[in-house]
Amino acid sequence: MTQFIDVHHGMKGITADQLKQAHKADLAIEKDEGVHFERAWADPESGIVYCLSEGPSAEAVQRIHERAGHKADEIHPVPLSIW
Amino acid sequence: MTQFIDVHHGMKGITADQLKQAHKADLAIEKDEGVHFERAWADPESGIVYCLSEGPSAEAVQRIHERAGHKADEIHPVPLSIW
Repeated sequence: MTQFIDVHHGMKGITADQLKQAHKADLAIEKDEGVHFERAWADPESGIVYCLSEGPSAEAVQRIHERAGHKADEIHPVPLSIW
Repeated sequence: MTQFIDVHHGMKGITADQLKQAHKADLAIEKDEGVHFERAWADPESGIVYCLSEGPSAEAVQRIHERAGHKADEIHPVPLSIW
């Protein structure tokens, strides 16, 4: 399993509730691909959303995002992390 | 206090130890600006590094990164988050 950070552009004006609903939509189907979405961050002003997930591949992460109605613009594996 | 995600490009080949040392260099001086660096993720293949921090402003976050020797290419406030 690898961690991924994906990026969505064009989400200007996104609200806390919309972010929550989008995240819920991912969680509802993530098991189909063995993916888990851990966290999400949004900047309503620039319209950028970042998601942190864990899964078998970037393609698996993308399939969940696509089915949930919000395809990612970029998905980067982040095999190194610190916390 | 606001959360920020900042992005560093051009870090191809970064190792786990280099990421750790860079993060330590931030932690050592972050209090000077009232900033706290919470997590960092890196993809050695594409050379992208993401940092999650909390602080009073993007400028404060950048000042710590600059003094630690690794200026960020982008810093985005992420006032909305889920985890």
